[in-house]
Order: sequence, then structure tokens, then C-alpha cells
Amino acid sequence: MTDKIFRVNMTDLTTSVEAVPADWAGHGGRGLTSTIVAAEVEPTCHPLGAKNKLVIAPGLLSGTPAANSGRLSIGAKSPLTGTIKESNAGGTAAALLARAGCKALIIEGLPKDDKWYSLSLTPEGVTISEESELIGKGNFAVVETLSKRLEGKPGIVTIGQAGEMKLTGANISIKDPDGGIRSNGRGGLGAVMGSKKIKFITIDPKDGKVAIAEPDKFKEANRTFAKALVDHPISQGLAQYGTNVLVNIINESGGLPTRNFTQGQFAAHDSISGETMHDLIEQRGGKVKHNCHPGCVIQCSQVYNDAKGNKLTSGFEYESIWAMGADCCVEDLDRIAEADRIMDDIGIDSIETSVAMGVAMEAGVLPFGDGAGVCRILTEEVAKGTGLGRIIGNGAGSVGRAYGITRVPVVKNQAIPAYDPRSIKGMGITYATSTQGADHTMGYTIATNILNVGGQVDPLSKDGQVELSRNLQIATAAIDSTGMCLFIAFAALDNEKCLPALIDLINARFGIALTGDDVVNLGKYILKTERAFNMAAGFTSVDDRLPEFFYHEKLPPHNVVFDFTGAEIDTFWDF
Amino acid sequence: MTDKIFRVNMTDLTTSVEAVPADWAGHGGRGLTSTIVAAEVEPTCHPLGAKNKLVIAPGLLSGTPAANSGRLSIGAKSPLTGTIKESNAGGTAAALLARAGCKALIIEGLPKDDKWYSLSLTPEGVTISEESELIGKGNFAVVETLSKRLEGKPGIVTIGQAGEMKLTGANISIKDPDGGIRSNGRGGLGAVMGSKKIKFITIDPKDGKVAIAEPDKFKEANRTFAKALVDHPISQGLAQYGTNVLVNIINESGGLPTRNFTQGQFAAHDSISGETMHDLIEQRGGKVKHNCHPGCVIQCSQVYNDAKGNKLTSGFEYESIWAMGADCCVEDLDRIAEADRIMDDIGIDSIETSVAMGVAMEAGVLPFGDGAGVCRILTEEVAKGTGLGRIIGNGAGSVGRAYGITRVPVVKNQAIPAYDPRSIKGMGITYATSTQGADHTMGYTIATNILNVGGQVDPLSKDGQVELSRNLQIATAAIDSTGMCLFIAFAALDNEKCLPALIDLINARFGIALTGDDVVNLGKYILKTERAFNMAAGFTSVDDRLPEFFYHEKLPPHNVVFDFTGAEIDTFWDF
Repeated sequence: MTDKIFRVNMTDLTTSVEAVPADWAGHGGRGLTSTIVAAEVEPTCHPLGAKNKLVIAPGLLSGTPAANSGRLSIGAKSPLTGTIKESNAGGTAAALLARAGCKALIIEGLPKDDKWYSLSLTPEGVTISEESELIGKGNFAVVETLSKRLEGKPGIVTIGQAGEMKLTGANISIKDPDGGIRSNGRGGLGAVMGSKKIKFITIDPKDGKVAIAEPDKFKEANRTFAKALVDHPISQGLAQYGTNVLVNIINESGGLPTRNFTQGQFAAHDSISGETMHDLIEQRGGKVKHNCHPGCVIQCSQVYNDAKGNKLTSGFEYESIWAMGADCCVEDLDRIAEADRIMDDIGIDSIETSVAMGVAMEAGVLPFGDGAGVCRILTEEVAKGTGLGRIIGNGAGSVGRAYGITRVPVVKNQAIPAYDPRSIKGMGITYATSTQGADHTMGYTIATNILNVGGQVDPLSKDGQVELSRNLQIATAAIDSTGMCLFIAFAALDNEKCLPALIDLINARFGIALTGDDVVNLGKYILKTERAFNMAAGFTSVDDRLPEFFYHEKLPPHNVVFDFTGAEIDTFWDF
Repeated sequence: MTDKIFRVNMTDLTTSVEAVPADWAGHGGRGLTSTIVAAEVEPTCHPLGAKNKLVIAPGLLSGTPAANSGRLSIGAKSPLTGTIKESNAGGTAAALLARAGCKALIIEGLPKDDKWYSLSLTPEGVTISEESELIGKGNFAVVETLSKRLEGKPGIVTIGQAGEMKLTGANISIKDPDGGIRSNGRGGLGAVMGSKKIKFITIDPKDGKVAIAEPDKFKEANRTFAKALVDHPISQGLAQYGTNVLVNIINESGGLPTRNFTQGQFAAHDSISGETMHDLIEQRGGKVKHNCHPGCVIQCSQVYNDAKGNKLTSGFEYESIWAMGADCCVEDLDRIAEADRIMDDIGIDSIETSVAMGVAMEAGVLPFGDGAGVCRILTEEVAKGTGLGRIIGNGAGSVGRAYGITRVPVVKNQAIPAYDPRSIKGMGITYATSTQGADHTMGYTIATNILNVGGQVDPLSKDGQVELSRNLQIATAAIDSTGMCLFIAFAALDNEKCLPALIDLINARFGIALTGDDVVNLGKYILKTERAFNMAAGFTSVDDRLPEFFYHEKLPPHNVVFDFTGAEIDTFWDF
């Protein structure tokens, strides 16, 4: 099947299937969403207005048997940051879109009326339908209802109440293989989907398959690639403890932001750690390992049950647990899991919203440690769109502005995640320079700063951090184009067979001959394309800075500040 | 008495009285506040953090007998716009500060504890005292209590609950000669004062007087100047109907923004007009004329009584009446007056807050026309700092972001006031290019676009608008440095004796020999100084634009859009 561009115009409710322009042919995932947004979206447009476009693209390897190739990229101008945005997640939709022959789905315009709609995508094109039953419902109800309403196992891309309300913390949720939820979490893309009045998108590839140009070469490369992944010790740690393996590691490093970024260690870290979580899962009959998409060989997800043995949440990630736990001082893992489930259901970013709760705690809205209060606010305020709910649902920066708080951990208005930039300085460079606001996944220097993957760069020293972040951001942009999970990076950095095998997979898929240099150049092209969009939107190097307090409030236990000058940060772009 | 700089450091609770640096000697009012903010405030600092400074400066002629010289300038980095800010108001404080020998009061730092303070300024210096009785109280209670607590008639500069809560709509209020309130309304400077934990400042000049170098020349110039003011027909209209004379005039022009900027005329304009207000004031025993500061010969203020003959509000301005009336579709002038009084008491900008209400009406928070709802929200939500109250109290942009609304009339996050930029295009250039966000007073092209003062430039044509706005913005920056009310501009534009008399006043006051060119150069210097601060804070020409909807939503009755290209707007700065 030849890939096509599927286009939906919500202003006149028309759809089309178009040939792929030559300039876009070599792109997938983030490379494609950013290329399309840069080509078709006015950088200065209102993110929730008719001129923004939501672009959904599987990766170059999505829909193939390549291990860990199930990530779906969604891009737009972000209503949270005002920058270009790409957010990716697992689930089944990426593979199904690729099998339907959809290289990218572009959704543009705004309906002229107040009705809600759904989209149904098959290889023939997209059908727009009015939707009423599921409006106002959470993501779990959407997935459950559609699983009954529709035949087969369609992919589902949906928004919860947060997206309907256009909250800038709203994510876009993707059904996983078991009816759970994965989230394109960051940047408020759910609000863009909500502004276009689309509650959900279903994807049915019928009997579509992804063609592979050189099947034998592909199979061989995939064997090498998958082995590299499963052999890496970090993959094994992730399978055992999930990403939450990091609580104790980052706490030990002194870089676990605690009590709204006033401390670097959380006294109750053991109560929320991956090790504790692992034991509780085993005791309660959950699943220690779980894959968020078919073909994942790492299986860092899990199913976390409550004390009665009923499923409470899955995809229970370190960054969410850190944010609700250490940053809000909530010590009860079950309460954090409950909040995680509520946020998945409302469809709101668990990093942004939890960091927002930490700022609200500093403002005196609720006490630090009040996990019950957090769950009440999520259910009674955020999900219902009260004044307080909208303040929190619009993210940490919103809470800071509402209450006049100056200790607000955001860059470009997006919440800083689970690694303090004062004691893990490489992350500070990534937060400051990322084209998309503070985002650990953009250039995960934890690999080399803390985990000794790809060498070792002292997290407390300024030396080498800019170069480290730059190299990782370039590599990440390329990986985000393949449909691969970012966790292939550990093997790619340490195992010399991994990256060549990944390139072989791409070459075998398309019958082409990319080299390692091509991949690096792709990463550079993506970063520069994104940066150019942001500059045209009015961003300057002044925006590539951390909030003031990181420069003068010393973080215990190392008692360090973030001490890069603006000029030093700006050397990031010397490539 | 030799003028001094009075400095207060709230971090260590120290004060000093310093000689005036040579570079600051020729400046007063806005020229001085902007010079000091540009010299001493880091452009990228958090506006509510320790690095921002609040600078209060009387004008060059404040404290003299010069007619209409009672405006007080307050400057800082604005928490609403992120730009440099100067806001000025009448009241008694400017003259009293000048008489106390205070060229500028600079307040810096933040207290280390949670206590509230007041400042008492005399010619000897500033005393810092703890304050508890008046914390949480509105401006009228502050003025009333201090009038009993203190001897004589001290000047009072205060914040209400809005400033205490650091809401970005918070203003700073100045006591007028009769215990009423005048407001340094725009840009959220009350939040800066609140961040520094200063509830009020009292000013007692003792027997201080402003020295005049050439008294006879001064007296002669003042006679000419005052005559030019009182002779101008617009001064006479202002005395009769207040600034609210404009409701019918701007409605007739089709530029009265109505129903959150969706129409250019308000069907019920007669019910809120200056003519109606004048008749009600006369019927109810109020005052048609009232001066906001001693020495005002125009007297555009008034005392507006309720139906029982009790004072409801004073300083009841066109822009406030427009915002609550036409923009929110409230037809009841008494209800608008009630809201005006509440906003004066809470200490919140009646333009910003009322435009915010209009956006909230569009979001469905309350119906258009619901004046009772507006008063309830002000009293029960804004004054009490609930979630909704903070959303609205932080201004129109805040409401737009909270509710995902795209029709949000702000520039640089400050609400656009009472003149639609589509049908009065000169105002659009002023809003877009002003160094301080949308602000009609920065370059009041209404004079020439609508009132035929200083010539005539067709409001519906693009021709001549950039030049008109540029000339007015340069002149205004200079006028704002003198301590003069902006309403001298009508006479200055039409009467050839007026501006020379004003220059003579300054020359006689200081024994110097300024020329008209010097005044123009002063205005240019101020604009360029302010612009340079903003650029260093990260603003670009992309910020010098109107919101998207003005470019594509046609405004009835003329059915016109704002049609300046970015390049055309940017020619503003060609000087």
C-alpha cells in the first residue's frame, strides 16, 4: 500500500486523501509532524484558533514487526508553550495508522457550529460523524464504549474532559493493547483536538499491511536490534521495576526535586520507589511487566492493583510518581496511583498537573502531602472545570500566575520534570534549549549524567553538559522519527550493533541506503526546523533560560545552583 | 529644598536618602521612572521577585502652582505585560512628594518574613513600620482609617485586596483631595507593591515647598497655560459630561467595542452616556465637576450619587463605563457605578477587569448584560481570591487562557480599551506599538481621528495613522514626564500658545532654557529607553501585533478589519 496524506478540514467538514509531497517522503513521526507544522501553520497563530493544525503521524517503522516501533507522534503549535510541539506515545494507533496507509493525518480548521464530532479512519479515507453520547465522558468510558460500539480492535485516539475544555494541560490518549491508556502527554495537544471539536478518532486498517522492501534483511536486522535491547541491563531494570526504578537512583543523586523544588531528596523515597511498587504489584496480583504496544521487548509498563487486587492504573511512570510523590510530598503510593488513574481518565498530563499541584501547595491552596486533597481537586475541580480546576488544569505556570508565586518550575511555560537542573546540570541545558519547553525526553542526559550509559559526565559540573545535551537532542529527534520508543537509546549508546541494526531496519523497510551521518543530519534538520518556527513565533534566546530561582536558591543536599550563563547556554545552537 | 532620591530596601528593611545622579537630574515622572527601571532592573527578572523595583516619581512641575500638574508616575517591570511600565494618576500624592523633596522613591527587594509593612515619607526620609490593622481591607477603609490615625492631610498611596493578592489587574490607588480614590490603573503595579508587602505609603512634606527659580516668569506662563486649557472646547465638554462625553461620540463613529469586541455600536448607548450621567448627577445632588488634584482647571471628575442621593463613585471614567457597559452589555448606569466603586475599593483596574468580564461572558461564566453578576463576582470571588476571582482579577488574557477563548482583546496581555482598532485605526497602531501593552493614553489618536483636534486623519483609512500615533506617543511620553494631565494635549495641539507656555513653566521652575526640540527629543528618548528594556526582556516585533481576530473578523457597522501588515506597523520605530 502506498502511503498517503489524509486531510480533514473541520471548517467545511470535508476530507481528502492526497499523495505525499516529495519533501515529506523521507520523513515519519516527529520529523514529519514538525515538517508539516512548519510548512502549513502560521507561527504566530492562536494555538486554539482555526489556523493551527493537528498532525498525527506514525514513525518510519510503525506497523512493521520491528521491535519497539509503536510510538505515535502528534504535532501542532502548542497552546501551553506557544512553540512547535511533538509529543509521542505508545498504544496501538501508530501501527494501525501505518497499516491503513496513513503517513500523516492533518486536521485543520474549526467547526462553525458548537457540535462535537468523531473521525473514523480506514484505508479509503476519513469519515466525519457527529458525536454526542461520549461528550463529557472520560477516556476510560470512551475506550469501553467504543470497544462495544465498533467491530474488531480499532485504534482509538481520544481526549477526556480536559481536552474538551481546552485546558493547556490536556493530553491526547491512545488505547493500548488491553484497553488501557497511553498518553501523548505534554504540551496541551488535547486542547488543540478539543478546539477542533473532535472527541475521538478510530483507526481500522482493514486488511492493510505495511510493505517491506527487503524482508530477509529486515528480519535479520530486527533480530540483532531486539537482542541489543533485551541484553542491556537498563532494559532489564525497566522490565523489573518500570521507569519508577529511578526514584531511589535520582534521590541518591540529590536531584529528586522535592516540595516544589526546594529540596533534592525526599525522606519518604522508599515508600514510592520502584522496588516498593514491584513488591506491591506482586503481592496484589498485578503485572510487573506489560507492553504499551505490540512488539515491545522491554515492557516497562505494568498493571498496578489496589489493596483489594483490582486494577488501579497501568503505565505508572517515574515522572508521574515523582511529581505527585516527592514534589507534592505525598507518601502513599496507592493515593498517587489513584491520582494517576484520574488524570488518565480526565486526559491531563500527569507531569504538568502534578507540578501544578506542587505550586498550588506552595500557594496554600492545599497542604503539602495532601494526596486526598489532590484527588478531590482533580475530580471535583479539574474534571468539572471550576475556576480552581482551570487554574490547575492549565498547568504549573498558570498556577504561578494565578497566585503570584515566583518559585514556578517551568521553561516556556511547561513544567520541569523529575530531575533538578541544579544538581543534574545536563538536564538544565536540555530544559533550557529544548524547542518544546522543559521536557526530559528531548535530551535525556540522565543516561550519561547518572546511569553511566554512553560514558560519564559529572552531573554537578558544567563541563561537557552542553555537548552532551546537544548530541542527545539531535539523536532523540531522529529516533522520534522512526516510531521507536526512546528506551532504545540506552542500547544504542552502549551497544555498537544497535544503531546500525536500526538503520538497516529503515533501509530494508524502504529499500534505501541511509548512513549514520544521514540519521545525524535528520536530527539536526528537525531541531533547526523547530527552532526556526519558534523564532518566527517570537521566541528569542531570552526564552532559553531557566526560571530565576534556579540561579540563586541553593538545592540541598549539594547546595548548588544552576550556574550557566546565557552565552554558555546559547552555544547549544552552534551546529 | 534640593530634590533627593529616597530609597527603601525591603529585604533588609533599610532606607536611605541619596543625591540625584547627574543622569537623572533633568527627568521627572515617566521619564524618570523609566530611566531608573531601565538602569536598575534586570529586564528578564520575575516582576514579583526581589529584583524588580517599584519607582514612584512626581513630575517636573508637580508641587508647583502650575495648572493640572498633579499626576504621579509609578513605574516597574509589569507583572501583567512583562514590559517596562509607567502608570500615572491624579490625587494629592504627587504634589506632596515634590514638596517633601522627593524626586523619586525607589522600593526594592522583598521582605524575608511574611509580615506586612507601611512606609511613611517625610523630608527627612522614609520610616518602615509593620502594619496589621489594615491588611485585608479595601482602599476606602485605608483612606478613612489613616485620615483618623494621622494628623494633617497626608498623601496616601495604597493597595486594596487585589494588590495584596498580587493579582496582575491590581492597581495602586492615590487619595484625592476629598478622600476619594484615583488609580494608577494599568499594568498590575499594585501586585508589585503587594509583592514587596507594602500596604500603603503616607506622605507628609511638613512645611516643604517646591522652589521656583523664576517666580514671575512662572506666574505669567501659568496664566497663559491655564487660559489655553480652559478655553479649549473639549476641556469644556469634559467639565460638563466628564470623559464619558465619549460614549455617544465613539458609538456614532462605529468604534465602540460592544459584546466583547464583536460589534462597533451599543444599542443602549444612551442609557450609559455622558449626557445621561450628567442629568442623573444633577437630579441626585452629586457634583458634575470635581478635581482629582489641586490645581486642575478642567475638572473632568465628578461625584455620582445613587438614587437615594448617597455618593456611589467618583472619577467615573468613559473607559470604565464603556467596558462594563457596552463591552459587557450592561445597560444600567447605577450598576456600572456600583461595580466601579467595588473595583476602586478592591484596587483593581476597571478597564482590565471589565474587559476580563466581557471575555468571561463569552466563555459562559455569566450572561452578557448581567451587571448584578458582575458585582457579585467582584465582591464574592475577586475580593476573596477564589479560583474564578483570580482568573478574572488577573485580567482579560488570563480569562482567555483559562477558558480557551480566542477572541481576547489584549496586546502584550493588557486589555484593549474603549476604541476599536478596526474602525479607529490610529488606535490600533498605538495598541500594537506601545511599549506598555494596549493603552489608549500612550498615543491618543482619538484626538485627530475622531475629535478633529490637531487636524483630521480619517479613522477608517490606513493613511497617516502610523505617523499620527508616533507623534502622539512621543509627545505623550514628554507630557507624562511633566506631571501634567494628558488632557492638556487637546489645547497643546490646537492652541499655539499652550506648548510654549508649558515649556516656559518648566524653564521658570528650574531656571533652564529648554526648547520645543528638547521636549520632542525627551519623548523619543523615553520611548527608545522603554523599547530597549522590552527587547532585552525578550520582546520582538512579533509582540507588536493585534490579536488574530482583529485581522479577519469584520466589525459592524463599517464591516472593517485591522489591515496593517507587520512591516507597516514596524515603521512606527523609524525615528
